[in-house]
Amino acid sequence: MKYALFAAAAAAFLRLVGAQTYQRLGACPGFGCLFPPDQADFLAGQYFDIRLEVHQPVNGSEATDLPLDEDFTFTVAKAGSAAVSGAEFFGIEEPELETWDFNWYEDLFAEDDDTPTLVNVASKAYRRVALYEPGEYVATLSYNNGSKTIANWLVRDMETTRKAKNVILFIGDGMTTNMITAARLIAHKQVNGKYMTKMMMDKFPVLGHQMTHSIDSFITDSANSATTLYSGHKTTVNALGVYADSSPDEFDDPKVETIAEIFKRIWGGAVGIISTAYIADATPAALTAHTRDRYQSGAIVDSFLHGNVNYTWSPWDGADVLFGGGAEYFFNSSLGGESYNDLDYYALFEEAGYSVVYDNSALETTPNDTKTLGIFTVDNMSKWLDRNVYTDNLLDQENAPDGSGGDAVDQPGLREMTTKAIDILSTLSPDEGFFLMVEAASIDKMMHALDYDRALGELLELDDSVKSAVDKLTALGSLEETLILVTADHGHGFDVMGSVDTMYLNRAATDRQKRNAIGTYKESGQSQYAISGNLTYGPGHHFPSAWDPRYTLFDGVGAFPDFRADYQVNKDGPREPATPLEDEEGEPIDEDDNYANPEDSPNGYLVNGTLPVRDDQGVHSLTDVPVFAMGPCQELFGGVYSATDVFFGMAECLGLAQTTAPDC
Amino acid sequence: MKYALFAAAAAAFLRLVGAQTYQRLGACPGFGCLFPPDQADFLAGQYFDIRLEVHQPVNGSEATDLPLDEDFTFTVAKAGSAAVSGAEFFGIEEPELETWDFNWYEDLFAEDDDTPTLVNVASKAYRRVALYEPGEYVATLSYNNGSKTIANWLVRDMETTRKAKNVILFIGDGMTTNMITAARLIAHKQVNGKYMTKMMMDKFPVLGHQMTHSIDSFITDSANSATTLYSGHKTTVNALGVYADSSPDEFDDPKVETIAEIFKRIWGGAVGIISTAYIADATPAALTAHTRDRYQSGAIVDSFLHGNVNYTWSPWDGADVLFGGGAEYFFNSSLGGESYNDLDYYALFEEAGYSVVYDNSALETTPNDTKTLGIFTVDNMSKWLDRNVYTDNLLDQENAPDGSGGDAVDQPGLREMTTKAIDILSTLSPDEGFFLMVEAASIDKMMHALDYDRALGELLELDDSVKSAVDKLTALGSLEETLILVTADHGHGFDVMGSVDTMYLNRAATDRQKRNAIGTYKESGQSQYAISGNLTYGPGHHFPSAWDPRYTLFDGVGAFPDFRADYQVNKDGPREPATPLEDEEGEPIDEDDNYANPEDSPNGYLVNGTLPVRDDQGVHSLTDVPVFAMGPCQELFGGVYSATDVFFGMAECLGLAQTTAPDC
Repeated sequence: MKYALFAAAAAAFLRLVGAQTYQRLGACPGFGCLFPPDQADFLAGQYFDIRLEVHQPVNGSEATDLPLDEDFTFTVAKAGSAAVSGAEFFGIEEPELETWDFNWYEDLFAEDDDTPTLVNVASKAYRRVALYEPGEYVATLSYNNGSKTIANWLVRDMETTRKAKNVILFIGDGMTTNMITAARLIAHKQVNGKYMTKMMMDKFPVLGHQMTHSIDSFITDSANSATTLYSGHKTTVNALGVYADSSPDEFDDPKVETIAEIFKRIWGGAVGIISTAYIADATPAALTAHTRDRYQSGAIVDSFLHGNVNYTWSPWDGADVLFGGGAEYFFNSSLGGESYNDLDYYALFEEAGYSVVYDNSALETTPNDTKTLGIFTVDNMSKWLDRNVYTDNLLDQENAPDGSGGDAVDQPGLREMTTKAIDILSTLSPDEGFFLMVEAASIDKMMHALDYDRALGELLELDDSVKSAVDKLTALGSLEETLILVTADHGHGFDVMGSVDTMYLNRAATDRQKRNAIGTYKESGQSQYAISGNLTYGPGHHFPSAWDPRYTLFDGVGAFPDFRADYQVNKDGPREPATPLEDEEGEPIDEDDNYANPEDSPNGYLVNGTLPVRDDQGVHSLTDVPVFAMGPCQELFGGVYSATDVFFGMAECLGLAQTTAPDC
Repeated sequence: MKYALFAAAAAAFLRLVGAQTYQRLGACPGFGCLFPPDQADFLAGQYFDIRLEVHQPVNGSEATDLPLDEDFTFTVAKAGSAAVSGAEFFGIEEPELETWDFNWYEDLFAEDDDTPTLVNVASKAYRRVALYEPGEYVATLSYNNGSKTIANWLVRDMETTRKAKNVILFIGDGMTTNMITAARLIAHKQVNGKYMTKMMMDKFPVLGHQMTHSIDSFITDSANSATTLYSGHKTTVNALGVYADSSPDEFDDPKVETIAEIFKRIWGGAVGIISTAYIADATPAALTAHTRDRYQSGAIVDSFLHGNVNYTWSPWDGADVLFGGGAEYFFNSSLGGESYNDLDYYALFEEAGYSVVYDNSALETTPNDTKTLGIFTVDNMSKWLDRNVYTDNLLDQENAPDGSGGDAVDQPGLREMTTKAIDILSTLSPDEGFFLMVEAASIDKMMHALDYDRALGELLELDDSVKSAVDKLTALGSLEETLILVTADHGHGFDVMGSVDTMYLNRAATDRQKRNAIGTYKESGQSQYAISGNLTYGPGHHFPSAWDPRYTLFDGVGAFPDFRADYQVNKDGPREPATPLEDEEGEPIDEDDNYANPEDSPNGYLVNGTLPVRDDQGVHSLTDVPVFAMGPCQELFGGVYSATDVFFGMAECLGLAQTTAPDC
């Protein structure tokens, strides 16, 4: 039945494909919108909201004479049963009708001409419902005298027995197989084509690929993909824990419950959240925030402590561990901060019983038996390469987490945050276990900046953290009861194509001569990064011993702004490849017209960009990303599958499916 | 012991790393060279040659006063036993001393200055030896009064029981995970982020990644990587079935026995070789040829029929199926051909009992009980896109396989060649099974040309062929007894970053305006290639229904020559992105100075290259490539491993290890 119905849905889907660059509303190509949409899968008992919208375009190519239909109806049917009204099906009151309007551009020509299309909307939202019985359901929105939008929903039939005590989900933001290959090359020795050591993730017994695309576009961002990994629901770029609707309020979009929320609700286990980004960034935020706007950073910080507050939702008593950057969303405007409602969130966390730490020394010594907030920098944390090799770059950053304007020179690495989190979570939740998400955020951030050295340093730090987590779990006797996943949320189109004789490149007189410094195929030679040198990181920790050898990597991405290519490590901090031209006062002439930054890679040759000139950085890519799995349920993560399956695999392993409704 | 000895080998290895772009001799950084080198693994009973070289650089940075040492010695020791001379160990006569010299450039400056380094060489070669007993061995070359080059060898300890009757190895030349993701996007429908169908390879139960780098450079070519996949020995760019030595003769390099040769020798099973390239191209050639120069195309064709002829080697009575292009190496110079010794190889194959077919019609009807040669074009076969969509491009090609100068308009696809090969091989070898290699060669060739449409068409044809092979094996009742692998030999740095509004791009006036046609993230929208259209390929065969939608893929590679980007299918045949500037007579001004081809992508914007200006195409990349496995022994192919392990897995599955020497 499911696929018979699909034909109708597909026909509707095809109507407006001409409008690709812009969409009236993602996942709603017709005039009747239903979220969760067709083909959505659910964990049994998972909370979600339903949003219905009926659209009336006033002008533009879709303009209609039909009045706005405020009398639309909604039914749900379990397969084999009759359809009943949504309110009756879920045993809730019929929601209030809402109306609004919005504007959008149908394509780039419409944008250039400034001819937006106005759309009137009639809508309802059904809040905090759940489907318990596994199987197929059909949800139907009927509108405009006979038009229908049909959604085939599936509640997955899975084992309900819990198999893992703990789950650690490592996310290398933007990390691809290509990057892992490059990181291995610069940090692990090989002899005659054979590696003497491998990455920790290489040693994981099960490998899979997950397909990362969005619900309504084939390239995703980190908000959207994190939502998928945590909830099993694909959504739209910038959306956290919700399907994106068209309403003006960015906090009323239809929510989906996340694995952190379900795990706390069902088992009462501990939850840890770690990122090297500002902690309100998309990947950590999607565990507790519900908004279609990932940039609501203050509210996101509030959600780590209080959960969702504007609607009744899963109970949430605060993340047990929260480590990262982003101090500016914790202190208030008196210190230059941007905290939610101008409150002091350090104080609020302390009042809620948290230990609060601001540097690595305090992190090391803080007790394990207390919920802990660790905020170590304003904005994103510093990069591994700057914390470990080019340490002068930690100075004059004015990024101390107390808002004093000092420098955060004693930041922990991802490894230190990870192992401490495991200590705390194991102590706080000795029986019910923990869910820990660890994000190496700046793989992505440095790929955006075309700063491949720093990106690969971050990736190697991730791998080092995975190894340290395995060691820590082994010491605690918990390795066998912990599912460890290492994966990513999307890619960047990066690869390595050979080597560069930087001595030759730097001495060559012209751009075309400089390109002769490139060695491909046989002339790529061997990696010079992994030769024994002066830098040591301790036994078993694999990083390059030389970051600026004569022969460096010839690497690149498939889409870029104007930039200069010199293939040499940026020793004075993260790269800034493109900037607007400046006038005599040093002010940008046009913020949306970027050229190669004259101060970046001065010895390099100029490459004009492929991206729109408003872009000053690289962008995400399509590629499937790898999933490395070890521990209970590892067999669920082999082969090729949707990113949603990462959620369902973790949920099955933690025994989160509830196939009967609670009595209350 | 193995790793204790490694330290000495590593020290030698580090001596000359300064010379990376050029190497005196790959895998021989010291003055004593030993092939197979340190860290080589062997299948028990696998034939191989040993090459020793002692180098005396006459000038350059390594110049030495030592005389050329012609009295070097060589020993081999099984772990736990005393070392004995190589001749005694293998029970063969001490080989003759050989001497020669050669020149090389130490780096790009030396090349610019034309100051080559002369090296004198003393050498011996031990022919057709084997190691039977699993375990560790130490081979030692002693030279220059006490210098040593040590190789730690390992004969893998593996099961000797045969588990699979047949092995089919599909090789997507240059195919990466990124390309598979893109091919899926354009050929399979998705609804709200969920694919309604998947690639056949996506459905394989086991996924692995293989590391592709060469023995002496981190970027490989197809000769080198095919040798690895077929023999378990990594080697040098351009080398087929040998380690590359420095001698003038490109046919005397130390050989390694391939899976095709071992399978015929041990079991007498049937061997099939299929490629969409000219059949003497590297990937098919490496199954039977033994030369460090992949461009010895005439001799390679001879090796398909006669095997190795200049030294005693594995018995070889000809490949049972040989399908592909490359007719010019079969007919002689009277027809414009370049066949080996100017012989008529069509006649030679016929004399050896082969059916010879020249087009798809003949292929369909030729009997299954006869060895079959099918050569369908001069040069590489035409691309899927030209054979199926833009069929006018088959005309005026003058590529008929009979050398008549007619057009090869009735070419089979990879699918037709694959299913017919299975029919023939199953008939010829009902008891001992078969080994079949199927190469989709032009994924690579079209990636080189930045012709991504054609590359993805070839990839989809590969997947379609995998599906058809599964169907054929099912029909024959052989699916359960056949190990099927789908993998690649190296990558290209390709990915998809969004979509392009080609209408907007084509109308924009300037290069910088054209770049505004790019849509990234949410603005990538959905694929327009997989919408139902007029083109049909039969049920279950998934190809794009539209190749020139308004919104196309925004795709690219990480290294490129100068080119023009228009993101639109090249309807008049494969792309030629870069060409030298021409003088008034239309002749190239400098063959080694390439610019964007003025006739290519005329609506596109200009992007200056990152590769040396002598390059007119893209190049290979570093990334690990996927391995999809289904059938007996599939569990051997999960996780991350060396490309050599693909050979060892297939060899184990076919029961090819011989742990005791034969009596004779």
